[in-house]
Amino acid sequence: MGKECYPSAMGWSAVGVDVGGTKIRAARVVDGRVVGETFRATPPDDPTMVMGAITDAAAGVHDGRCPIGVGTAGQVDRHHGVVLTSPNLPGRNVPLGAALEEAFSVPVVVDNDVRLAAVGEWLALGGEPGVLVALYVGTGVGAGVVLGGRVLAGVNNLATEAGHATFRSGGELCGCGRRGCFEAYAGGRPVVERLARRIGSGQEAPVHVGGVVELAERGDPAAREVWEEAVEAIRTLAWNLVVLYDPAALVLGGGVVRGVPELAGTIREHVAAQVWSGFLQPRVVVGSPDAAVTGAAYTAWKEHERG
Amino acid sequence: MGKECYPSAMGWSAVGVDVGGTKIRAARVVDGRVVGETFRATPPDDPTMVMGAITDAAAGVHDGRCPIGVGTAGQVDRHHGVVLTSPNLPGRNVPLGAALEEAFSVPVVVDNDVRLAAVGEWLALGGEPGVLVALYVGTGVGAGVVLGGRVLAGVNNLATEAGHATFRSGGELCGCGRRGCFEAYAGGRPVVERLARRIGSGQEAPVHVGGVVELAERGDPAAREVWEEAVEAIRTLAWNLVVLYDPAALVLGGGVVRGVPELAGTIREHVAAQVWSGFLQPRVVVGSPDAAVTGAAYTAWKEHERG
Repeated sequence: MGKECYPSAMGWSAVGVDVGGTKIRAARVVDGRVVGETFRATPPDDPTMVMGAITDAAAGVHDGRCPIGVGTAGQVDRHHGVVLTSPNLPGRNVPLGAALEEAFSVPVVVDNDVRLAAVGEWLALGGEPGVLVALYVGTGVGAGVVLGGRVLAGVNNLATEAGHATFRSGGELCGCGRRGCFEAYAGGRPVVERLARRIGSGQEAPVHVGGVVELAERGDPAAREVWEEAVEAIRTLAWNLVVLYDPAALVLGGGVVRGVPELAGTIREHVAAQVWSGFLQPRVVVGSPDAAVTGAAYTAWKEHERG
Repeated sequence: MGKECYPSAMGWSAVGVDVGGTKIRAARVVDGRVVGETFRATPPDDPTMVMGAITDAAAGVHDGRCPIGVGTAGQVDRHHGVVLTSPNLPGRNVPLGAALEEAFSVPVVVDNDVRLAAVGEWLALGGEPGVLVALYVGTGVGAGVVLGGRVLAGVNNLATEAGHATFRSGGELCGCGRRGCFEAYAGGRPVVERLARRIGSGQEAPVHVGGVVELAERGDPAAREVWEEAVEAIRTLAWNLVVLYDPAALVLGGGVVRGVPELAGTIREHVAAQVWSGFLQPRVVVGSPDAAVTGAAYTAWKEHERG
């Protein structure tokens, strides 16, 4: 790898890839900013096809030299670059890191998407917050914590799997097989599915959270119930993360947060009402839409730099 | 401070003090083991009296040279040695650290009791677990996390205030003024109080959790309801801490854990049933009754050594 990756005038440089449920985004990132990007649709059902699409997307922005960081939902063996389980990458134990290293002959880091996004949020805030919590509510619910610039990983690289903490013990069945997880009440997919189950076959159910919120605002009782419970789950999780990690900043992201603008204010008010008086309130802000790719790129670069 | 504090044959030496709601325990700790101790009753209502009792207890084991670590429930400004609020030390902003430094002319560290106990638990496990979570259920509910030998503090020294994460939003009023905290369902005092409120004035209510459990086992419906909800809160919190910190060890402590032997097994089973298959299960163990004083002593010594 040449020094060309790190021109002193421009800072560091790497590629960040965000593997989403519907699309794959690959970005060339220079000194924390996206300077070019490519998108591919996420192929369904076949891990080999998904790896091909990721390679293809990365090739569109790669310069042949810089390290690559990839984030995807689910559990990742970061040490070996293996995606253990992911809703966006079917199958188990997918050796994504090795495949990309072979394709590009550069170092590759693979990790959980929200954990990498938390690094991107920390970068976007100038690398300042000593403790930062990112809470992402999209199709699913995830979190990441950055302590002194480093991601909190845990012994299995499973720390901050906040979507699968318990909101209501014995409650709704979650996609993970457990009951009552925060994700089962607050994730975009479960919200849509819960409403569809209540509405039954007689009426057409919304297919996006935005539609659920709209129905709730028009006074539909089932939609109100489902959405109010989702908001309760999200704000409860936000407070629990604040009380457990005591961050300087709580950064909100994900499709549901972006799609429902009033949600961030609701969370901010709830946290402000709960925080000990006299203590530093965490900043509660909506994060950067680039955090997933900038955080992935920065992490790959940092890891490579460390050697 | 002379080298006598650290005789090479015996390892390090310091005094650890645990300020409880009913008694104060001061221990001389050598290389992680208690080699002598004194107890005093905790005086009620007057912070000056409590500080006097702490000084008195510490004097009983102090050698005139070694650093002193003190743990108490509540919120502590560790940097200034000031107890901001504590159920065991009435008043606000009590300058406990300065008072002890003046009395003994040695460095003093003051911090939250469970956070220091977490360090003691980590020591008791040989300083090995890369991530350790201590969950203490006594009069109240607290937690501490040790990451690579260091306590997770947060930006206000308020991290891991797990007792005040939300178990049931809008639920029982907690001693802290919030609603639905885990502590309001699982703490020894709230459990006793909840049952007393349900029983009313016609019947004598138990004054300890042990009595509540006994009544529940004899089939009393109110006692069963209160105790079952307490168990649900405790095991839910245990799982949430596992999923949020991904520890190698979850160490249980506190009066309720010690007083109800079957509780640890219930928690262990719940965590085992919830953990992702194929991943390292955290060890779920009952901790050391000395952890509060050994952790306080070690922390004071370590801080002093660091200079």
